[in-house]
Amino acid sequence: MTRMEEWGSRVKAASRILGKMPTGRKNEALAAIAQALWENRQEILEANARDVAAARENGMREGMIDRLSLDEGRLSGICEAVRKLIQLEDPAGVVESGSVRPNGMFIQKIRVPMGAVGIIYESRPNVTVDGATLCLKSGNAVLLRGGKEAIRSNEAFVRVMRAAAESCGLPADCIVLVEDTSRESAREMMRLSGVLDLLIPRGGAGLIQSVVQNATVPVIETGVGNCHIYVEQSADPDMAERILVNAKVSRVSVCNAAESLLIDEEAAPALLPRLAAALEQKGVTLYGCPRSRELCPEMEPAEESDYGTEYLDYKMSVKVVSGLDEAISHIARYSTGHSEAIVTRDYEAARRFLNEVDSAAVYVNASTRFTDGGEFGFGAEIGISTQKLHARGPMGLEALTTTKYQIYGSGQIR
Amino acid sequence: MTRMEEWGSRVKAASRILGKMPTGRKNEALAAIAQALWENRQEILEANARDVAAARENGMREGMIDRLSLDEGRLSGICEAVRKLIQLEDPAGVVESGSVRPNGMFIQKIRVPMGAVGIIYESRPNVTVDGATLCLKSGNAVLLRGGKEAIRSNEAFVRVMRAAAESCGLPADCIVLVEDTSRESAREMMRLSGVLDLLIPRGGAGLIQSVVQNATVPVIETGVGNCHIYVEQSADPDMAERILVNAKVSRVSVCNAAESLLIDEEAAPALLPRLAAALEQKGVTLYGCPRSRELCPEMEPAEESDYGTEYLDYKMSVKVVSGLDEAISHIARYSTGHSEAIVTRDYEAARRFLNEVDSAAVYVNASTRFTDGGEFGFGAEIGISTQKLHARGPMGLEALTTTKYQIYGSGQIR
Repeated sequence: MTRMEEWGSRVKAASRILGKMPTGRKNEALAAIAQALWENRQEILEANARDVAAARENGMREGMIDRLSLDEGRLSGICEAVRKLIQLEDPAGVVESGSVRPNGMFIQKIRVPMGAVGIIYESRPNVTVDGATLCLKSGNAVLLRGGKEAIRSNEAFVRVMRAAAESCGLPADCIVLVEDTSRESAREMMRLSGVLDLLIPRGGAGLIQSVVQNATVPVIETGVGNCHIYVEQSADPDMAERILVNAKVSRVSVCNAAESLLIDEEAAPALLPRLAAALEQKGVTLYGCPRSRELCPEMEPAEESDYGTEYLDYKMSVKVVSGLDEAISHIARYSTGHSEAIVTRDYEAARRFLNEVDSAAVYVNASTRFTDGGEFGFGAEIGISTQKLHARGPMGLEALTTTKYQIYGSGQIR
Repeated sequence: MTRMEEWGSRVKAASRILGKMPTGRKNEALAAIAQALWENRQEILEANARDVAAARENGMREGMIDRLSLDEGRLSGICEAVRKLIQLEDPAGVVESGSVRPNGMFIQKIRVPMGAVGIIYESRPNVTVDGATLCLKSGNAVLLRGGKEAIRSNEAFVRVMRAAAESCGLPADCIVLVEDTSRESAREMMRLSGVLDLLIPRGGAGLIQSVVQNATVPVIETGVGNCHIYVEQSADPDMAERILVNAKVSRVSVCNAAESLLIDEEAAPALLPRLAAALEQKGVTLYGCPRSRELCPEMEPAEESDYGTEYLDYKMSVKVVSGLDEAISHIARYSTGHSEAIVTRDYEAARRFLNEVDSAAVYVNASTRFTDGGEFGFGAEIGISTQKLHARGPMGLEALTTTKYQIYGSGQIR
């Protein structure tokens, strides 16, 4: 048995015990975790400071350093998020449906935890707590494999959480950290068939692709968003500008930020210069098609590849389209299936966009930035699925469960 | 573009058109398909006769020949199954939930077709019609890749179905057959990422494993059933015999047939000889643990590997266990997560078995043979999922759909 198989089988064994725990017990453990994280803040922040110092030494860029860094404020936010989970309904045990069959058997479909969940992520230590506690609340044991730059922070977090869970009678192995942060360990984890019931990669497009290419365990792809704003010819100009600027610049580094602007050729001459100026004023560099650049010569020329790029930066691609049909086909070709919005005053354009655009969240006259578990009212979010299997869009606790059929008979045979 | 990529992209393009078709139009196409299959029965049965002749020449064994063979009676049953689909509710378009958010946006979650579905299967030509029409009803275009022994039958079926669909205004490419039945073509199909939204393998354990190991598109594992009957010490002896015999021999070649008998050590001395005799009388060879063989010396000795084998034959493994805990751990270790049954009169044993056995369908006092879309009241079945992601247990039309969020705004930004 390799080390990875041993970590996996410990998580699997713990999942069987955790799956039997009533909600009250799991909530006690969450409360204990939140308290322990705060009481052990000195140890955690010191570990994190060592991670940050090492990352600086290795020349990590500031945006990444920021994601890696913790302070008392951020830690307090993390503890608060754990406490919030206590209030949410436990999805495990909910009966989805039930009926008596003609032969007298009673069949019910009941929601149950997935079992053993794996999460592979990058160097954001908050995901360690977030992922572990969402899994715990839904009755899943978790195998966590974070980025190597955050290993000291992750070790501290996991040590504290395991002890707190154990103090409430849960198996410590309901939270296990993969201590080996090599590339090889991630590959091995993706192939733990028969051990992991679900693997969630959280991170950039490269990580997601690597998981999709290599995993043999069931995967949910999350969080790659090449989101579009389509300004249809009938759009209200003020609304178009407001939504576009919000979707692009309110937070550029997130998956629900817009990356591409499509605009109808009828609207472009009057409206595109104004929209471009509003974005440029916020520091956005635009990459335009030839027709966009005729109207706005200051745009950089767009390469074909720009339309497929999730910039996560102050950059946006722009294309003038002949109308709704071209907009829909362009999105079908380049979108990652995350979130797209149309700005329009036309009923039929809105109706067709909602029905024909094949993405997790499709908006009329609202910013793509709303695709988020909190904004959708789920209370918590484990990620945003861009695939169609199992869960699509923001995933709350229910996405961490599956169902089983329980059949109550009295001797029936077929 | 390879031939496979071309087939895939034709299906993908057709899925966009099919996804917009109202239920009425899809039902017309189903009626036309059922009629055309019957009207063209001579062409279809001749093609099938050529397949059967070639298979005989190549030495295919009779059980497989039987699965490959069609006659007027079977074809009539196939047409009848297509007509039954017309009566079923279309899952696409159903609104699952909806609410107005505090900022006034209306969010609804609506069920939509998956898009482009792939099915890889063996030499059962009925799956060609079954798979194509279930996909059509739920609004999915389908790429079919059947076994090479059935290629002539499949070509005839697909030609007839495509023409019938087209005559009703559906794109012919909503049903495409992979004409290349090489192993390489199956591998290529499993890697059509970004084209296929879902891949369903239907067949034996070898096929399923190959798909799980090689696929990069989302997969639903189906139909491998190493099902257990656990006779708990309090079991009614008559009921135990009735359920066991039914689960083992009513149809040995199907995935919900029982493959392994577990019996409590307290019950074994009085009951196991009787159960063994009943099975042996039906022609079942038993492979027993040492304690079983002390009670029933005529049993063959079981190897460790017997407990992990789905025989699909008149064979069954037998193990005497110390009680419920050992039964549950044995099942956790060897089961494929399909269906398991306990026979008991004890409330707590029933309760724990239902909750702690981690399979798609868990029975108290009923035969595992009931795990079936028809028996569960779904009206139709595309397969039985043994994984936890997306669908678990018998999959009806709804398992061929996903959801999307449609958001109706009035200019909201975040």
